Amino acid sequence: MVKKELTNRKIFDAYNANKLIDNQEVDIQGWVKTNRNNGQVGFIEFNDGTFFKNIQLVYQNESYSKIRYGSTIEVKGNIKLTPNNKQPFEITAKEIILLNDCAEDYPLQKKRHSFEFLREIAHLRPRANTFYAAFRVRNTLAYAIHKFFQERNFIYVHTPLITANDAEGAGQVFKVVADMKHPDDFFKANASLTVSGQLHVEAFALAFQDVYTFGPAFRAEESFTSRHASEFWMIEPEMAFCDLEDDMNCMESFLKYIIKYVIDNCPEEMKFFDSMIEKGLLDKLHHVINSEFKKMTYTEAIEILKKAKENGKKFEYNDIKWGMDLQSEHERYLTEEIVKGPLFLIDYPKEIKAFYMKLNKDNKTVAACDLLVPYVGELIGGSQREEDYDKLLAKMKEVGNDKGLEWYLDLRKYGGCIHSGFGLGFDRLLMYITGLSNIRDVQPYPRTPGSLKY
Amino acid sequence: MVKKELTNRKIFDAYNANKLIDNQEVDIQGWVKTNRNNGQVGFIEFNDGTFFKNIQLVYQNESYSKIRYGSTIEVKGNIKLTPNNKQPFEITAKEIILLNDCAEDYPLQKKRHSFEFLREIAHLRPRANTFYAAFRVRNTLAYAIHKFFQERNFIYVHTPLITANDAEGAGQVFKVVADMKHPDDFFKANASLTVSGQLHVEAFALAFQDVYTFGPAFRAEESFTSRHASEFWMIEPEMAFCDLEDDMNCMESFLKYIIKYVIDNCPEEMKFFDSMIEKGLLDKLHHVINSEFKKMTYTEAIEILKKAKENGKKFEYNDIKWGMDLQSEHERYLTEEIVKGPLFLIDYPKEIKAFYMKLNKDNKTVAACDLLVPYVGELIGGSQREEDYDKLLAKMKEVGNDKGLEWYLDLRKYGGCIHSGFGLGFDRLLMYITGLSNIRDVQPYPRTPGSLKY
Repeated sequence: MVKKELTNRKIFDAYNANKLIDNQEVDIQGWVKTNRNNGQVGFIEFNDGTFFKNIQLVYQNESYSKIRYGSTIEVKGNIKLTPNNKQPFEITAKEIILLNDCAEDYPLQKKRHSFEFLREIAHLRPRANTFYAAFRVRNTLAYAIHKFFQERNFIYVHTPLITANDAEGAGQVFKVVADMKHPDDFFKANASLTVSGQLHVEAFALAFQDVYTFGPAFRAEESFTSRHASEFWMIEPEMAFCDLEDDMNCMESFLKYIIKYVIDNCPEEMKFFDSMIEKGLLDKLHHVINSEFKKMTYTEAIEILKKAKENGKKFEYNDIKWGMDLQSEHERYLTEEIVKGPLFLIDYPKEIKAFYMKLNKDNKTVAACDLLVPYVGELIGGSQREEDYDKLLAKMKEVGNDKGLEWYLDLRKYGGCIHSGFGLGFDRLLMYITGLSNIRDVQPYPRTPGSLKY
Repeated sequence: MVKKELTNRKIFDAYNANKLIDNQEVDIQGWVKTNRNNGQVGFIEFNDGTFFKNIQLVYQNESYSKIRYGSTIEVKGNIKLTPNNKQPFEITAKEIILLNDCAEDYPLQKKRHSFEFLREIAHLRPRANTFYAAFRVRNTLAYAIHKFFQERNFIYVHTPLITANDAEGAGQVFKVVADMKHPDDFFKANASLTVSGQLHVEAFALAFQDVYTFGPAFRAEESFTSRHASEFWMIEPEMAFCDLEDDMNCMESFLKYIIKYVIDNCPEEMKFFDSMIEKGLLDKLHHVINSEFKKMTYTEAIEILKKAKENGKKFEYNDIKWGMDLQSEHERYLTEEIVKGPLFLIDYPKEIKAFYMKLNKDNKTVAACDLLVPYVGELIGGSQREEDYDKLLAKMKEVGNDKGLEWYLDLRKYGGCIHSGFGLGFDRLLMYITGLSNIRDVQPYPRTPGSLKY
């Protein structure tokens, strides 16, 4: 047994609960974040990985000042309460045992490294402050998502990663091959990596009512932007007996719940992001929690954008007309300058949305919604699904997506009902919540074109 | 808004809390599981997907007897408490609205279907009792796993699915290709689907101390057994400052916790499996919860097996000698007949275990453990990792696995420490807990060679 009872987190928890006892004996293992010595006394910033904040060790034995940054140590000593200092407690180290001497060529130096450089050492960067905070928030956000759905009796479904279907009917996909000489032999089908679990999870909504996926998805686009990765995690809830309005209610509750959960459970990390990464981050997030989300139709939005243009507003994509795909600049204008808060844009032209979305009575628009938020634009997309067998079949034939999806059509024939869902990228959500602006900085080992070192 | 407040689950929860009120009005939507009429009065077994048990609807209006099995309905009526009946409450239906008439050729008929047939209708089988129960337990088990680790301050890490490494140094892997003509162009590397996230997550254990993965893994084996799938989910915890003994303590707590959580949170489903799928299932699981897990070295196990053979025990693989890989029959003999309960087998010959496992002082065995359980054999495998840079490098060279894993070696050079972890297949664990004997029956859309219809 080498595991110790005590951790950074337990010490901070005890402190916060007013239960940390002066002179209490400690025996704790972790890593040296800094080590300095003023000639009389030495100070080590110590962290064992369990909590965002370091603990200060104070030592007298001068030989400890040789312990290098990054090294692994065991510390025996006593808690010292220092209520009048900036750090309200420290550990008086009686004995420091060097468990592993960090080699001198440690690439992660004490100085400030660029994020670009840190991406090159993906195996070490979780130890750097920004990433130490980001991957903690990533963990908390993932759990918040499960908690939200589990508390509401949703069933978590592992939709398949390898698939013969392509939900969006578009987009480049990765092929999955066991034998390059006979690529379709293994599965006796054209196998690829999924871009969405939605179609698969709809079948489960028609058995369990409320379900969700939370798993990886893939895109084989040669995209080098800060928002695209070849591999990412997605959340796709699907609800039976649920129309677009119910769907939007769920999206709003969901977003508020998970943001609040992260702020409540990662206060130190969120303070760090607010001060070091995006000034005003916490205000932005509190604003979302406290807003009532607004609703606007696509048609209304086009009118507003046209009027803005008439009044001199310049958009990069300035050919505003009904039927166009809104660009991020348009979405941001609507959410930032018109409603000044989160906005559901609804009822999009059927031509620019996916085949499975419910056709509205106007025969021109579909019951789709995008949730727009300030500084980002679209954060979540959802829709009511076409539950009418004949309309869905006609649409699938029209877009040439009717082969191999007979099973999906079955869901309208046997026990069908009004149902809706939404989807969002987990990594982009994490970018929004941390203020980190590159998807490569919120993923443990990002996969992008040309990037597969780790 | 079409979503209703009331669900099967809420009605059963109210009943169980003694809060279900006689004559209470209900308005609820769901599916018809059976519909029969004795001439005077009709009965519908109703389920809305939120709870394992059906609710009985009683109606007078004879026209409702034409509503077909599988159809979607809305029911308006009143709760009727019937404390003296087998079903302690029912719904007196005043009005039943047919929302979707299930087509007559519904493949899921009321009769008992074979599991083989049900696999052919993967999109409809979640509605069949066994699968309705199995995917509920799957959900609960997944959440139990997250809860266990989150309560212990482990950090959840999404290790990558697309990788250039191969943790096991063996096994057939799927290649990931964007363009079949230029297979390595996209990533500028030989990209494949991961078989394990362990090596990647070790880097995170050295930053956060206790971490875990829970995500998909893949094997491209042409295996047609009931225990192999091409795609499955794995759990891989990794702990810093943790030796093999600590590791086994964690495994034992983990297994007991998640089994207890499932029994406590899916009592109806587990009773169903106990009576319909594996007689004695609950006894088997309670025995695990209440056992103290035993420990035995591989060397002791070989002696016991040799002695058993001398005493006339016949094994299919009967050439018992030190250095052999134990077969399932040997593992089952040890756990079922020798210790009669869960058993950790430890200290395996280094030749039959993976390169990253810690070499013991005898220079012959490694600090590995397999957790064996009755009726299955190996359920979980774990090990202490080699933390010595030179020994690990020598071993990696010996097995020809030193190229491309320099970053993995770095973890022994910069802030290394004693660390350990374990891994288990989620789907096999679910088989063990439900008693279902084919992995195809616990996965939403199983992927096996030649099988990719959905």
